[in-house]
Amino acid sequence: VKRFRFGEDAAFAPREDLLDGVTIAPLTRSLSDDAPVQAAVFRIAAGGGIKRHEASVPQVLAVLEGSGLASGSDGIGEPIATGDAVYWAAGEEHETTTATGLTALVLEGLGLQPFG
Amino acid sequence: VKRFRFGEDAAFAPREDLLDGVTIAPLTRSLSDDAPVQAAVFRIAAGGGIKRHEASVPQVLAVLEGSGLASGSDGIGEPIATGDAVYWAAGEEHETTTATGLTALVLEGLGLQPFG
Repeated sequence: VKRFRFGEDAAFAPREDLLDGVTIAPLTRSLSDDAPVQAAVFRIAAGGGIKRHEASVPQVLAVLEGSGLASGSDGIGEPIATGDAVYWAAGEEHETTTATGLTALVLEGLGLQPFG
Repeated sequence: VKRFRFGEDAAFAPREDLLDGVTIAPLTRSLSDDAPVQAAVFRIAAGGGIKRHEASVPQVLAVLEGSGLASGSDGIGEPIATGDAVYWAAGEEHETTTATGLTALVLEGLGLQPFG
């Protein structure tokens, strides 16, 4: 057994144009390290977001805490809150924003399929 | 974009000998459906647990809420709480228990590697 942290103390703030007020705490190695799937907790500060971009691989975003708006290719922001998950297919344009802050698990990987 | 729920309202209680007071809300399809990885939120009631068994594939358990004890092959229960994650290798005997209740994300899949 190996232990590690994914709390706020273990999060880093990537400097990336797509990320606005976002810290990331990884649970797994990244796809760029040849991992079959990458999982991380994204914490988005109030007023921040993950700007519109194309999903490189299938992705599930599961809201652990807080609330916000998520949109797919149609650009219509749908309210999401704790217990809601959204799935985007590879190549789908999408965006996530929050007025009050949001913590989400983000899973990404080839062949990832949402439940149901 | 596709939406679904993984809150308590979407959880089911599998009848399985290894699970004691556990409900599961899947985020992805299961390995038995040929998914490359399966992710689900496990909610363990106070006094419950996931009994000692061998991990069939590499596994990460990330505590989202609550606290408990996790052990690996040596059987020594180490305290885990919100923000702590543990990784078990394929074939490793392990167990998770909680006196007061615990909610965790469980990720399982061939080739899954923990961060760090």
